[in-house]
Amino acid sequence: MSDRLPLGAYLGGLRTEIDAALERVLASHGAPPVIAAPVHYALSGPGKRLRPCLTLAAAEAVAERVKIAPATARALALPAACAVEMIHTYSLVHDDLPAMDDDTLRRGRPTTHVVYGDGLAILAGDGLLTEAFGVLARWPSPASGNHRVETPPADRCLRVVGVLAEAAGVAGMVGGQAVDLDASVKDAGALENMHLRKTGALIRAASTIGAIMAGASDRVIAAIDAYARDLGLAFQIVDDVLDVEGSDAGLGKTAGKDARQGKPTFPAFYGVEASRRLAVECTERAKAALAAEELDGRLAEIADWSLARQK
Amino acid sequence: MSDRLPLGAYLGGLRTEIDAALERVLASHGAPPVIAAPVHYALSGPGKRLRPCLTLAAAEAVAERVKIAPATARALALPAACAVEMIHTYSLVHDDLPAMDDDTLRRGRPTTHVVYGDGLAILAGDGLLTEAFGVLARWPSPASGNHRVETPPADRCLRVVGVLAEAAGVAGMVGGQAVDLDASVKDAGALENMHLRKTGALIRAASTIGAIMAGASDRVIAAIDAYARDLGLAFQIVDDVLDVEGSDAGLGKTAGKDARQGKPTFPAFYGVEASRRLAVECTERAKAALAAEELDGRLAEIADWSLARQK
Repeated sequence: MSDRLPLGAYLGGLRTEIDAALERVLASHGAPPVIAAPVHYALSGPGKRLRPCLTLAAAEAVAERVKIAPATARALALPAACAVEMIHTYSLVHDDLPAMDDDTLRRGRPTTHVVYGDGLAILAGDGLLTEAFGVLARWPSPASGNHRVETPPADRCLRVVGVLAEAAGVAGMVGGQAVDLDASVKDAGALENMHLRKTGALIRAASTIGAIMAGASDRVIAAIDAYARDLGLAFQIVDDVLDVEGSDAGLGKTAGKDARQGKPTFPAFYGVEASRRLAVECTERAKAALAAEELDGRLAEIADWSLARQK
Repeated sequence: MSDRLPLGAYLGGLRTEIDAALERVLASHGAPPVIAAPVHYALSGPGKRLRPCLTLAAAEAVAERVKIAPATARALALPAACAVEMIHTYSLVHDDLPAMDDDTLRRGRPTTHVVYGDGLAILAGDGLLTEAFGVLARWPSPASGNHRVETPPADRCLRVVGVLAEAAGVAGMVGGQAVDLDASVKDAGALENMHLRKTGALIRAASTIGAIMAGASDRVIAAIDAYARDLGLAFQIVDDVLDVEGSDAGLGKTAGKDARQGKPTFPAFYGVEASRRLAVECTERAKAALAAEELDGRLAEIADWSLARQK
């Protein structure tokens, strides 16, 4: 993909690659229909696919440094992109359950448990989480023989298993959701810490695993990680601000819910204007981390887009 | 461990190794206390540890063929043993939820959701499943420097990730539980198929991953797999028979529940006596698969013990 494409078209192209790969992964499983249906439903919602786009964009951003073509870097990172989207989707399915955040609308559609019941929604989430790791070990070949299959080396795949498990596990996303559920967040510092676990950890992982799969050095991976840490924080602040200001239709989920549920948010602690300024600062730091290592590609533009988005 | 130990003492020794390793894994995570507590509770119940014992016993059974010491084989297989027990435990925590089998007693104690609530039980299960894969990528070193750390090669670890994901995923354990929840099992063939997915797949994987980690050939791995397929079926039949005949105190879980819930069981389709005969036949086939490859160790005795157990 040319760097000259407008960002929207560039991300659209990545989404097309990711969606096709996810369909291929689902088709390869041989799951009983009773579980295949809710898994497919959860995964096929019209999401932004931010995390897997970050994976592929990070792989492209390091391609020149490791002397491979951008398309080769993307192909190497595609299993990791699928894995991170499956983990993100499982977390939404479980977080929406009545026993957790009890939400009925997600990505503009009824949530998985509303359609299939709580039991199958729990199992669909479990299945997505499990298969996310499976896809890193068993990458299904494309049906057509049109393009060469790039299979990343086992040591890179195993490292990605470790990075994703740490980001999604009890010290990361699952831990952050438990802290959120426990309603123990009482100040802005605790809120930032909770979000670094709950949302930030997976956004960081999404970016670094792209660089790992492409074969980047530890130093370059660290720069991508620094970028993604601030990007993730800015992303969450913007989410919170949009929840205060948005509408159901625009967001594709229930607006104003955080405030009504008494959930801790950045606007609640800092006010809307200071929250916006904080998001701008985080975005600038994210871009500076890329610039320090002269990493090009589209990651800086993605940070600007994430800051300016309306949903 | 000497082959001359009585089986009970042998399995007790394996359990001690496994429990110590699981404690080390939990301690390495840095999870917030709110999630560390239910994870620890779920994992520390007085279970049989059948699956991780199979992993270590399978590693020992192939040790001579790959020309390594039994203790080395066990050490190589220990991360896989921890992973399979964490996956088994997560599945119990989720299956016991009100939205699934709604059980309040497990391993002689209140189930995790009874103690911590549904939300944290879901998250504890999610965390255990995630960290199960993580442990294959990031094996924590023992605190003491007394023994050399055996780290299996990345390609074996990644293969184990794939085997466990397939066994636990939508075509395996999760798929089997979905079929069970869907109450679509109407005959003995469908029941066997459901159990091969729901219980059998993970017991098979538990055994083969021990052989994989120890470095066995594909032919030897296939023999271990054949053994474990029949062992797993016999195990489930015995479980069903014990549910008909047992008491709560003896089983450590609610007895007679399958029948009261109208759950499909082997005794319901075949009667108790024919079910027992079927379990004996499966056990004999399991042992024959080992004998055909002249695999020694304790796997045959484990099959006999599983058949004769009272809980």
